[in-house]
Amino acid sequence: MKFGGTSVADLERIRHVAQLVKGEVDRGNEVAVVVSAMAGETNKLVAWTRELSPLHDAREYDVVVAAGEQITAGLTAVALSAIGISARSWLGWQVPIRTSAMHGSARIEAIEPTLMSERLSQGQVAVVAGFQGIASDNRVSTLGRGGSDTSAVAVAAALKADRCDIYTDVDGVYTTDPRIVAKARRLEKISYEEMLEMASLGAKVLQTRSVEIAMVHRVPVRVLSTFDPDAGGTLLCDEEDIVEKKPVTGIAYSRDEAKITLRRIPDRPGIAASIFGPLADAGVNVDMIVQNVSEDGRKTDLTFTVSRGDLARAIDAIEKAAPAIGYRDLTSDSNVAKVSMIGIGMRTHAGVAQTMFRTLSEKGINIQVISTSEIKVSVLIAEEYVELAVRALHSAYELDVA
Amino acid sequence: MKFGGTSVADLERIRHVAQLVKGEVDRGNEVAVVVSAMAGETNKLVAWTRELSPLHDAREYDVVVAAGEQITAGLTAVALSAIGISARSWLGWQVPIRTSAMHGSARIEAIEPTLMSERLSQGQVAVVAGFQGIASDNRVSTLGRGGSDTSAVAVAAALKADRCDIYTDVDGVYTTDPRIVAKARRLEKISYEEMLEMASLGAKVLQTRSVEIAMVHRVPVRVLSTFDPDAGGTLLCDEEDIVEKKPVTGIAYSRDEAKITLRRIPDRPGIAASIFGPLADAGVNVDMIVQNVSEDGRKTDLTFTVSRGDLARAIDAIEKAAPAIGYRDLTSDSNVAKVSMIGIGMRTHAGVAQTMFRTLSEKGINIQVISTSEIKVSVLIAEEYVELAVRALHSAYELDVA
Repeated sequence: MKFGGTSVADLERIRHVAQLVKGEVDRGNEVAVVVSAMAGETNKLVAWTRELSPLHDAREYDVVVAAGEQITAGLTAVALSAIGISARSWLGWQVPIRTSAMHGSARIEAIEPTLMSERLSQGQVAVVAGFQGIASDNRVSTLGRGGSDTSAVAVAAALKADRCDIYTDVDGVYTTDPRIVAKARRLEKISYEEMLEMASLGAKVLQTRSVEIAMVHRVPVRVLSTFDPDAGGTLLCDEEDIVEKKPVTGIAYSRDEAKITLRRIPDRPGIAASIFGPLADAGVNVDMIVQNVSEDGRKTDLTFTVSRGDLARAIDAIEKAAPAIGYRDLTSDSNVAKVSMIGIGMRTHAGVAQTMFRTLSEKGINIQVISTSEIKVSVLIAEEYVELAVRALHSAYELDVA
Repeated sequence: MKFGGTSVADLERIRHVAQLVKGEVDRGNEVAVVVSAMAGETNKLVAWTRELSPLHDAREYDVVVAAGEQITAGLTAVALSAIGISARSWLGWQVPIRTSAMHGSARIEAIEPTLMSERLSQGQVAVVAGFQGIASDNRVSTLGRGGSDTSAVAVAAALKADRCDIYTDVDGVYTTDPRIVAKARRLEKISYEEMLEMASLGAKVLQTRSVEIAMVHRVPVRVLSTFDPDAGGTLLCDEEDIVEKKPVTGIAYSRDEAKITLRRIPDRPGIAASIFGPLADAGVNVDMIVQNVSEDGRKTDLTFTVSRGDLARAIDAIEKAAPAIGYRDLTSDSNVAKVSMIGIGMRTHAGVAQTMFRTLSEKGINIQVISTSEIKVSVLIAEEYVELAVRALHSAYELDVA
């Protein structure tokens, strides 16, 4: 059972969490709980660290922010004991949850829950501080924002748990963002692959890395509401376990996009490397890429997208590499957004993408860039059309609730 | 260098602490810093834990409250790096600082600073989270309130430091509480033995346990002000290093006293054990004890003091043991206070105690209980006379500033 920041925001909610855990224990289950920091706590600690030094040592950042989950883990164990449930807290270094040395955004490498498993089998609830681990230098590490989801799925995998329940402030995964589309429908089930696309394309229910781990280790993950746990939730499962496959499962969007266009670059082998090499060196992830067919066989235009926070760094890297690339001019645009439709049904249904293009065209929305994978199609459009596009696609793919 | 909660209360003060540390580094010193939690933080965490469960597991209490010092240690290391001083934080389990398993009020048993010493000799400042350690069960332990002083002196002893500087919100140890006696004088030097008495008798500058460790390991401890470090401070040292020995060094007082009197108890061997045994079992520390001479050789009265917080528990323990003791009635009084005069000079000066009794008598203050040691005399009086008694004794022993 994993509880996020809003689920443990104050003592009253921590008591509520303890009751939910008690419910599982009473049903005869062995339970490991993974908790986030109390809502707002991580932001406060991050702000303090940044204010002292924008270029702080990531190892010290980890020491400071990991305290947030430590507090919640201890308090949750106390709340459980108070209602007669045997419980103890486990910090990252105690489990241990071993991670890479990439402090601030470490990856879980191994979990060795021997002692914890023993305690679980004795009926003691394990309350694990999420988001944290221990690096090979014997220092506290953190997994990056949202990392408690990853902690939970990884702990579930290490314990070979029957289920990993992610309690959050929504009651499941929706066909799209219900704040934009009132007729969005909760999905009973979604395949790991689809969820991975949904998460990486902007649906904020689960952290991408946690879905990857769930998929690799085939951990059955359930997303459900802390405040209304009986509402049903959404189960992440294998594709084979989903009987009714609509062509499209969901519509995702992301406003965290920026577009860069380089005009009149030489149309020759190696030109892509001369552009994307410097970007990779600067730590900038490039998402969508489109290169025009050159008219004269000598010069062409290239457009690609990066996340908005990386735009300044990306432009800087390109401008430094300008002599090697040899472009005429660079333009950029932050007023763009990505809208995606996701569905494993696409593999077997024809004409799915065509419906997307036709629907957007009918609304007068211009498609700037297109990218596709086996189970999704993404388009880049002007940001002002996001809501319109999402609503139109949601109807066109017959996702609206009856 | 040890900095208490008010010295690291906010980011501005943490930056100031970093500057003080830089000053020592610039003077060519290797520096280990021990920090408390930011002022108010520990109280908040303790209150949360208590609110969830008054009878919380002490091991979880430790997990929660130790987070306070963890945060300060990380932030202080960041603040040091920001001004070009190489630094890293050390949590209790990382040093490691090994403690007893008495969670919530653990005692330091061993410090193994091998790696830390190595880093210090390489010029890296060590920022140690005070107040915390690791118990033999591999779990976080804390030393009890004020424990960061103890951490500092113990770390200084383990590192064989030349000096342990305790930075606090006062500029040294005074002949008495300056809030009560305007003419109180800062002591340039005080012997470990005297400081031990001062600390245990109510002067709140240093925690008793830290003075014990300093005395045993002969760590030269300096108490000085974070906000006015050049004001001079007070040096704790061996008796032999103090040249001018006045008969009395200081006047201490404590309001945390309560008195219990048992009337008409049998005057026979073993009666003390039947009273103080149950109190010890209930975890109540008894301080002063006075037994009247029995008039008839069969029945007598017994009076003793406990701390106010223990009064209810003490009465409960006595009443449960009433059949075995056989007293006629039990009375208690919380409106009492203890006033003490301390001085190694007492060993060589005669008539020192007589001055105390005469002075209090002249002011019409009744002495309820007396207890003495080689270098102190304590009296229990009605609480309302505390200020009057302290001021009168301060003058009588010529401690007033000129």
